[in-house]
Amino acid sequence: MTGAEVLLRTLLAHGVEVCFANPGTSEMHFVAALDRVPAMRGVLCLFEGVCSGAADGYARMTGRPAATLLHLGPGLANGLANFHNARKARTPIVSLIGEHSTRHLAYDAPLTADIAAFAATVSPEVHRLESPAAIGPTTARVIAAARRYPGRIAHLIIPADFSWSEGGPIGEPAPPAPPPAPPPVSAVPPQGGAGNWGLLLGGQTAGERGLALASRLAAAGWRVLIDRNAARVAMGRGGFQPERIAYFPGPAQEQLAGLTDLVLVEAKAPVSFFGYPDEASYLTPPECRVHELATPEQDGLAALAALTANLPADPGWEDPPALLPPPLGPLTVAALGQAIAALLPPDAIVSDEMVSSGPPVLAALRHAPRFDYLPVTGGSIGQGLPVAVGAAIACPGRKVVVLEGDGSALYTPQAWWTMAREKLDIVTVIFANRRYQILDVEMRRTGANGFGERARAMVDIGTPPLDFVRIAEGLGVPAVRVETVEAFLEHFARCLREPGPSVIEAIL
Amino acid sequence: MTGAEVLLRTLLAHGVEVCFANPGTSEMHFVAALDRVPAMRGVLCLFEGVCSGAADGYARMTGRPAATLLHLGPGLANGLANFHNARKARTPIVSLIGEHSTRHLAYDAPLTADIAAFAATVSPEVHRLESPAAIGPTTARVIAAARRYPGRIAHLIIPADFSWSEGGPIGEPAPPAPPPAPPPVSAVPPQGGAGNWGLLLGGQTAGERGLALASRLAAAGWRVLIDRNAARVAMGRGGFQPERIAYFPGPAQEQLAGLTDLVLVEAKAPVSFFGYPDEASYLTPPECRVHELATPEQDGLAALAALTANLPADPGWEDPPALLPPPLGPLTVAALGQAIAALLPPDAIVSDEMVSSGPPVLAALRHAPRFDYLPVTGGSIGQGLPVAVGAAIACPGRKVVVLEGDGSALYTPQAWWTMAREKLDIVTVIFANRRYQILDVEMRRTGANGFGERARAMVDIGTPPLDFVRIAEGLGVPAVRVETVEAFLEHFARCLREPGPSVIEAIL
Repeated sequence: MTGAEVLLRTLLAHGVEVCFANPGTSEMHFVAALDRVPAMRGVLCLFEGVCSGAADGYARMTGRPAATLLHLGPGLANGLANFHNARKARTPIVSLIGEHSTRHLAYDAPLTADIAAFAATVSPEVHRLESPAAIGPTTARVIAAARRYPGRIAHLIIPADFSWSEGGPIGEPAPPAPPPAPPPVSAVPPQGGAGNWGLLLGGQTAGERGLALASRLAAAGWRVLIDRNAARVAMGRGGFQPERIAYFPGPAQEQLAGLTDLVLVEAKAPVSFFGYPDEASYLTPPECRVHELATPEQDGLAALAALTANLPADPGWEDPPALLPPPLGPLTVAALGQAIAALLPPDAIVSDEMVSSGPPVLAALRHAPRFDYLPVTGGSIGQGLPVAVGAAIACPGRKVVVLEGDGSALYTPQAWWTMAREKLDIVTVIFANRRYQILDVEMRRTGANGFGERARAMVDIGTPPLDFVRIAEGLGVPAVRVETVEAFLEHFARCLREPGPSVIEAIL
Repeated sequence: MTGAEVLLRTLLAHGVEVCFANPGTSEMHFVAALDRVPAMRGVLCLFEGVCSGAADGYARMTGRPAATLLHLGPGLANGLANFHNARKARTPIVSLIGEHSTRHLAYDAPLTADIAAFAATVSPEVHRLESPAAIGPTTARVIAAARRYPGRIAHLIIPADFSWSEGGPIGEPAPPAPPPAPPPVSAVPPQGGAGNWGLLLGGQTAGERGLALASRLAAAGWRVLIDRNAARVAMGRGGFQPERIAYFPGPAQEQLAGLTDLVLVEAKAPVSFFGYPDEASYLTPPECRVHELATPEQDGLAALAALTANLPADPGWEDPPALLPPPLGPLTVAALGQAIAALLPPDAIVSDEMVSSGPPVLAALRHAPRFDYLPVTGGSIGQGLPVAVGAAIACPGRKVVVLEGDGSALYTPQAWWTMAREKLDIVTVIFANRRYQILDVEMRRTGANGFGERARAMVDIGTPPLDFVRIAEGLGVPAVRVETVEAFLEHFARCLREPGPSVIEAIL
């Protein structure tokens, strides 16, 4: 059995069943082995950033790592931006990188580069296969590293000759290590107590179970908020919906104002996205005490359960009303948000890369039926479409909706081809304002005075206009352009009804 | 004057006049400063790999560095694959990367990453601005580092607060250091001498002047070859045209067979692109002596001039005949090559990323009028379109032709938008075989036996088919699909005649 086949069988033995791949010559034996290991699903992506983003989306929805298979240093380089996002999301991913054959490495061939240096930019877990016989046990160790709670990228660099040599035993699966126990909760008064107590939920505690537990504290008078970097958040009607920490420092500081104590659960104290000349980076009020109930590496759910054990189990919360579709007429961001919230089916998955269009749409989505919300965690755009690919492969019965800025869509549009090829149930809505609009705002906020026509041209992506209908159709996905509320409602409803991928370019 | 403005003025004082940019919040002050420093040409690209590839193409054609302006670690990450190609091409590039403000860095915000670690993967020249007052002198040092012969990427990491603070003096330009003198040539017999002598030309010696000098040695009985990694090669009728070292080991070994001595000029001894189970990596015959007339860091032109000083100045060479257009009928790679060679205008620039379609087309192009040939130097695909952007901006009077594989086009299609925006005279020909066809070949060569339908599907990019006419039009470039020789001839002639960018999808 070749090393490549041993690797695929070791992955399967550990429940790693999907591999997002953009292979090259050094990975050909893995590709060949797919015919002998048919349980491994190989998903071809035409750009490496789609592979890394899709693996992130897959693991956010399943809790299990997928594999990526990339080609030498430069292939890995193209995947790094979305690996950065996955790192900030604390997502488990098994990152396989083909390397030149060991004998060839000495010759500094064109594609030779320091793969370990590329890999280390997004994870300290960089492993290099040392012999063909070691491929099974080494792969098992790499998978274990990826799965160590809460999850991380673990790289395995595989010289080509080790994949075409006889490969030794398949790696033995070990049970995933449980998250470490949280510290004792005795310092924290669950019944509120004196002062104003806040709770910041991150990691798995932003999901359904954590929110249910946190709602008891809200009923006891706590202010509950969600870490902006939480990778997967339960949102919408039918459950407790705390606010997420806002993007800009001012509104975020308002959310935290007046707190005497802030309790962190799998989260870090909130900081602003960027630094600005005259604004704070650290957003919690200076006089507020910060308590770490569980670090991101600890079991925040167990800690929350212990903390809330004596509080009423179902304090209830008030669901916001369902929304009617917006009045007909020209599209605005607010109307789009209302329309999406009115039509979103139950149990959807929403991948959000709206950037400047986000706040009004997310406010409307609080009125939609319960859904899973997948935000950009590391601030690197080009994640929205790939994460949707992974989420759709993880959850075949559920509808995935991507809310995507036009600027951000252009970083990884190749994801549409994989959606078409794999017939994934994904509706993409492009918010086409034809600018890097967030930069219009940021230019002012950073105090960049005296800018004029030439500076404005550098955030203008509408000259020439991008035609997302043609781009998406060129990549195999049916698409339509809409300019009115009525057209959006008609086509969004149709796209949600029909199987397979579709794109709606909403002109703002 | 802000630090950002000092930086732009220092760049200009050194002849760095173009900046390929994909900016974000931390770069807003540079963008704003463009209105106060109008001599700096800011070229907006919608993906960072377009910036780095364009800077490579620009410097290959001008000999002078352009700047790139990228956004924090993940933005730089997206540019690394084409920086890898530029590193292997030994191209001078001034790589500017915005960083969080110094005060904000402590807070591990979402976009925080180790920018220096990303940067070091493609160059040891990683500089970090230490104060706003130092921006002029530091930038001058970074430019000098980039221009040190033969050229390299030099990074400057700039905290946002240093670009919005008062910036100190503009950096003084220093003349670029000349290349070091080559070693003495006394060991090498210019008149041929006993045995079979070969000459391998790299770096600047693959250009017109080096080829003219080398042709004297060819007339004296030497076998002259061109380094496969030479970044810019003069080709076509009207000048000496040595063969480039072939891609696969077997044909390359045939080119070198029987040599007793191989003289390297700004080149390294040839090695194969990939290692294969039973083939050599080092391609020169084992008994052949290798002499280093000039290293890549030395002045190979001066060395060649000294070596050939006593040889006849114009030995002449035989030009291959001009080609007629091919017979009408269905398109083949050979017919495409003949058609392109028949119609290519004089003094064109050809950016080559044909991959598997390359050999027959390049053989035909030996019959075209003299042109500059820009190959992929580091083996990372996604370079062909961006390099053309830079070459067209460098050489506004000349026609640029991109010969592009369909698989490779999909790594950086965003380059088409910049071509449309800047109205660049670039004709892209897509070789649409709808496969990663090189991998079909490589799968067999690496001995990956037993592969079947599932493996073949992983190199099949035709399911669903890509429609490059729609993709290009969606990005603002007029496009046409052709399936016959007659249609290709008609449209290629028209595209060469008309100004501005165009795309021809040639179905094979």
